[in-house]
Amino acid sequence: MTHFRYLSFLTDYGLEDGFVAACHGVAAGIAPQIAIIDVTHLIPPGDIRRGAVVLAQTVPFLPPAVHVAVVDPGVGTSRRGIAVAAGASVFVGPDNGLLSWAVAACGGAVRAVSLTNRALWREPVAAATFHGRDIFMPVAAHLAAGAGLEAAGQPVEVADLVTLPVPERTIRDSVAEGEVLTVDRFGNIQLTITAADAAEIGVKPGGTVRIASGRHRLAIPYRDMFGAVAAGDLVAYTDSAGLVSIAVNGGNAAQRLALPPGAVVSVTAIR
Amino acid sequence: MTHFRYLSFLTDYGLEDGFVAACHGVAAGIAPQIAIIDVTHLIPPGDIRRGAVVLAQTVPFLPPAVHVAVVDPGVGTSRRGIAVAAGASVFVGPDNGLLSWAVAACGGAVRAVSLTNRALWREPVAAATFHGRDIFMPVAAHLAAGAGLEAAGQPVEVADLVTLPVPERTIRDSVAEGEVLTVDRFGNIQLTITAADAAEIGVKPGGTVRIASGRHRLAIPYRDMFGAVAAGDLVAYTDSAGLVSIAVNGGNAAQRLALPPGAVVSVTAIR
Amino acid sequence: MTHFRYLSFLTDYGLEDGFVAACHGVAAGIAPQIAIIDVTHLIPPGDIRRGAVVLAQTVPFLPPAVHVAVVDPGVGTSRRGIAVAAGASVFVGPDNGLLSWAVAACGGAVRAVSLTNRALWREPVAAATFHGRDIFMPVAAHLAAGAGLEAAGQPVEVADLVTLPVPERTIRDSVAEGEVLTVDRFGNIQLTITAADAAEIGVKPGGTVRIASGRHRLAIPYRDMFGAVAAGDLVAYTDSAGLVSIAVNGGNAAQRLALPPGAVVSVTAIR
Repeated sequence: MTHFRYLSFLTDYGLEDGFVAACHGVAAGIAPQIAIIDVTHLIPPGDIRRGAVVLAQTVPFLPPAVHVAVVDPGVGTSRRGIAVAAGASVFVGPDNGLLSWAVAACGGAVRAVSLTNRALWREPVAAATFHGRDIFMPVAAHLAAGAGLEAAGQPVEVADLVTLPVPERTIRDSVAEGEVLTVDRFGNIQLTITAADAAEIGVKPGGTVRIASGRHRLAIPYRDMFGAVAAGDLVAYTDSAGLVSIAVNGGNAAQRLALPPGAVVSVTAIR
Repeated sequence: MTHFRYLSFLTDYGLEDGFVAACHGVAAGIAPQIAIIDVTHLIPPGDIRRGAVVLAQTVPFLPPAVHVAVVDPGVGTSRRGIAVAAGASVFVGPDNGLLSWAVAACGGAVRAVSLTNRALWREPVAAATFHGRDIFMPVAAHLAAGAGLEAAGQPVEVADLVTLPVPERTIRDSVAEGEVLTVDRFGNIQLTITAADAAEIGVKPGGTVRIASGRHRLAIPYRDMFGAVAAGDLVAYTDSAGLVSIAVNGGNAAQRLALPPGAVVSVTAIR
Repeated sequence: MTHFRYLSFLTDYGLEDGFVAACHGVAAGIAPQIAIIDVTHLIPPGDIRRGAVVLAQTVPFLPPAVHVAVVDPGVGTSRRGIAVAAGASVFVGPDNGLLSWAVAACGGAVRAVSLTNRALWREPVAAATFHGRDIFMPVAAHLAAGAGLEAAGQPVEVADLVTLPVPERTIRDSVAEGEVLTVDRFGNIQLTITAADAAEIGVKPGGTVRIASGRHRLAIPYRDMFGAVAAGDLVAYTDSAGLVSIAVNGGNAAQRLALPPGAVVSVTAIR
């Protein structure tokens, strides 16, 4: 039986209610020795894809943990709750794809169970609208405290888990085509195109790339850091997750370019 | 002398200044072994009633703790600071009603003191505008570390504590009349009407209720979960606090219906 | 070798991404026994001065710690990363002035190093755009776990550290002239003028001050607490950081007066 020192916790619960604290409290009651690292609770309500992106890009920097994530527009419906072992960690949440990119980032699902064992849920019987407090967090705390994965419920085939489609990207000739994966707090636009893709089409730090999307046809310097261009200028770079991104030095590229998640973007090296 | 492993902390301090951290730091200096669970710090400035709702609905899910709450428009005036024993916990904050609903949720006040013992305050003398840092948190930390309630100050009659009026609700014939208690992050509208009230007037999961408020006359399905209605449809349900609530599946009911806290709402079962 | 029980952490990373959690995770991997006190992560992007104010006013209430602060518009450029010993604490962050007011509040820099020792950075090689995760936090965690300051890199002269100019204030005759230092969550306007300055020009609690700034010529009561004036009225007072401030009882002075940080303000005692 594995004991975990850490839980991580990502939701769309926001910070203005007591929802996150209630979950912390439930965990503390079951496994008081465990520390909780809050990933974020500001995923836009119901935005599974955004939750999946943030979780997948954060988990590689967390210690082995039971990672609890709840963005769950189908709470209470027939969608399953699951616990998934991957790498040195266990993921707990709804089986709606939210966990899938992070599980993949940890090497893929090794084993999984459906959370059918009510003995690990919170008593009294769970509210149909708050599985984070009444199912996911108590199950996660029991798992962190040493309960085996099989104690949480019936085994399920890992191939049957719901997965989000892998973000689109293709390389044709010298053009990498992908889409906007997400936009961060600073307005930096992260593409689905990797640094390896960029290298393959001939993008070099110090060079220039053509970014095309909708009406935009932009020639942008490709640099290592924001400060390599003048304040207010666009810059393309490999971001801290290893993805091609677009920023404005000291400004907000997402506002400037109005490129939302999902927008199709192509990148070409300018020689 | 009771030792507590946990403090909880609710305020209207916001998250953009260092106010919350200063309080955490003061507690750490007095009782470093204690863990702090932040309930929320985003209560709208001075909104005692909102603070009281969130505290009362969160505390039942927290472990026994010293619960510190500060929404304190009268800071520095003659309003008392108090510590109140209730259930297995102690509440610390201003005597302005903020604590009263949570104290009631824990079974009611057993003993209370006015925070008159300056020996438990932070030195140097407290700022008149930041009692959270200089009085409430240090007193709470001392109480958590084992100081008895009586060490914090003069006993006061629990009957003399300021209490917020219990939210209105009445049942007449087959109509439950109450008001909007609060609205959460998702825009879900929580009424003062309990699940027991609803049962008493004949509301059944799977049935339909008439919701009347101002110009609204709505027939809404009463279900266990959001997903039992189509996306974008209104649904009434018993929420995770045991209160009748109104949501939009995948949407924001408070924006849709423009029903603010305090709005009078009646509920009738449609047979 | 000093071991620290606490890290503190201030950034402009926001709370909607996983950036803060990634840093927490990196610290947990290096120094799992250490507790992190989050000061704030809502410094406006790149606003070094605002970060410096919040850090300097919060650190005095924190226990001895390694204080990590990252507001770093020059990330990846030639600006140095530094660790600075001051008082019983160590400060870690970019050498752009962000740390300077807090270091001064702790009695001034005693020793400093440039973070040149890559052995204390996170492996693999650091992202040029996320030094918080890859350099500052891992170095800080190693320092907290007992590494000596000199292990982090080459010594630098404390006189060579970048410092922000000390906020302007002058006393001429019976007039104290300063500027708006910052505005807090409640809209309270904090001036650079200290309580001692105010006393020197004859301001007394219970008296009245003339506040002049731009088109404003206001006579405002000087009191100990907000509640000493009627709801909605302006009040001047010595705030919890020891600075002259202007508030509206139950309201927002910054919105009322439209006085942003940096606005020149003079204070005169009215006899």
